[in-house]
Amino acid sequence: MRVLITGGGGFIGRKLTARLLADGEVGGRRIERIDVVDVVETTGAGKDARLHTGTLDITDAQAVDGLVSQGFDLVFHLAAIVSANAETDMDLGYRVNLDGTRHLLESLRSLGTCPKIVFASSVAVYGGDMPAVIEDDTHLTPQTSYGGQKAASELLVADYSRKGLVDGLSLRLPTIVVRPGKPNKAASTFASSILREPLAGEKAICPVTTDSEMYILSPRRVVSAFIHAAGLPKERLGMTRSLVLPGITVSIGAMIEALGEIAGPAAVDRIEHVPDAAIQHIVDGWAPRVNAVRARELGFEADGDIREIIEAHIADELGGRHAA
Amino acid sequence: MRVLITGGGGFIGRKLTARLLADGEVGGRRIERIDVVDVVETTGAGKDARLHTGTLDITDAQAVDGLVSQGFDLVFHLAAIVSANAETDMDLGYRVNLDGTRHLLESLRSLGTCPKIVFASSVAVYGGDMPAVIEDDTHLTPQTSYGGQKAASELLVADYSRKGLVDGLSLRLPTIVVRPGKPNKAASTFASSILREPLAGEKAICPVTTDSEMYILSPRRVVSAFIHAAGLPKERLGMTRSLVLPGITVSIGAMIEALGEIAGPAAVDRIEHVPDAAIQHIVDGWAPRVNAVRARELGFEADGDIREIIEAHIADELGGRHAA
Repeated sequence: MRVLITGGGGFIGRKLTARLLADGEVGGRRIERIDVVDVVETTGAGKDARLHTGTLDITDAQAVDGLVSQGFDLVFHLAAIVSANAETDMDLGYRVNLDGTRHLLESLRSLGTCPKIVFASSVAVYGGDMPAVIEDDTHLTPQTSYGGQKAASELLVADYSRKGLVDGLSLRLPTIVVRPGKPNKAASTFASSILREPLAGEKAICPVTTDSEMYILSPRRVVSAFIHAAGLPKERLGMTRSLVLPGITVSIGAMIEALGEIAGPAAVDRIEHVPDAAIQHIVDGWAPRVNAVRARELGFEADGDIREIIEAHIADELGGRHAA
Repeated sequence: MRVLITGGGGFIGRKLTARLLADGEVGGRRIERIDVVDVVETTGAGKDARLHTGTLDITDAQAVDGLVSQGFDLVFHLAAIVSANAETDMDLGYRVNLDGTRHLLESLRSLGTCPKIVFASSVAVYGGDMPAVIEDDTHLTPQTSYGGQKAASELLVADYSRKGLVDGLSLRLPTIVVRPGKPNKAASTFASSILREPLAGEKAICPVTTDSEMYILSPRRVVSAFIHAAGLPKERLGMTRSLVLPGITVSIGAMIEALGEIAGPAAVDRIEHVPDAAIQHIVDGWAPRVNAVRARELGFEADGDIREIIEAHIADELGGRHAA
């Protein structure tokens, strides 16, 4: 089978690519070729005869069509403008996050083969008037342009799937912790920074109170979720083509405590607490507790606890060693 | 103030225009001018110095911008491709029902005056995995392209409102009964036909079982709802910019019974029962019961009963007389 990953230059795309190449198959089918594209040239996940990297501006419908017309059996659609960036550059957010998804769906439709598409949505589709615990049937009331664009894209994925034009599934991703690399423009970026930087011997700023809670999932688990999603037969999905992924709810205090247990008090001391009312307001508007019944029933799994997440980061990103 | 009505050539647009002209004001502000546009030339609601009619292809972003740039304080956005038509012509449905809404919002945004927009959404945003009674916080799981396009447009209206670019409100309309005029391409069109045609001395076909239930609202009440919406201050709406309108739940049998009570057995005999599995399937997928708490609290009102709806139709459309 032929696989396409959009936005594949990001950390999830790179890890997903590496995992697919290592597995050699997905959903029980052998992988012949993986095309990993991003808006800028991506180094991809190393050299492999099956791996082809390239650039794609997903806002360019013709470019999307040109690529997709080569024929793909499975698409992981990760390309997106992140939350804070989509909020400040509204036009860019709509062009990438909504129009980009539509271009992709249209191109896949024109293949006429009902290809599988796994779409990276977000728990940012929730917000505002929410219950204390998000359930599978909680309504979507996004309070960011990013969340609105993801929710609208989910509607497209569902409609194209209902009509048999694609076989789609939208995964609402929790905040991914610990993100490797540098901070990005997502409002949630601090949740990774306060663990990643101290583990690397660097300082980090925590802009929210320690009792603030976040609903999180590790990079390992989110990659597993994408791969699991790709193998789910449409008969098990029915008409509901959106799923909120299982994660764990962790307070900032508990994250810092686990950091201390694993890396010692010096690591904790590298976190400076500088309250930021704007970020606190955004974080307070997120859904901290989610009861992801349907996804669990379909075989998606959360991390065991925050320690497991930190230890996976140390193993995967730091070669098993962290700063003392 | 200056008012724009898109899709104003339809029956709701014509009635709304007539009512606005008669009232002379809306939301406590005097109406200086009403522009009523539709994709084809509309005769509008008669002659009036304040009334200007014209054509607008809402899929043409430049045309929308050209019109809107004249400056409007209030827009009633009714332009749409109806359900069955949007289902068979998917491209047209998306262009009109989603892109059209976006073009309008973009043009209103560029005015920089945060104009009011009242958007005609639909209970077609519900479907599939629904509770027995729709509540204000029921999730949207549309099972038609039309419903998906309306739901996605609601997300746009909410996002543009949240950012202060427009002051928007999406009204989820029940099935409007009794629609005047001819049957259209909506799957629900029979619900008006089985009353309208017998009252006019003509035959009608009922394609669904008499125990099928529908959630309905009269033309009079929907016009009142649009006008009431236009006068609601944004402080009362907060962040939730979608409302399902109060209606009444009536079985087809009860509709026919009321027809008989008002117009006699000969009227009932003009209804031929010809089951249509496709239409039955669509109707069975709709939400027949809705608990529209929030809209009622905000002052929106349903009809008293089906008799009131039929009598209003006779008064408004038939000059007070019906076929015996």
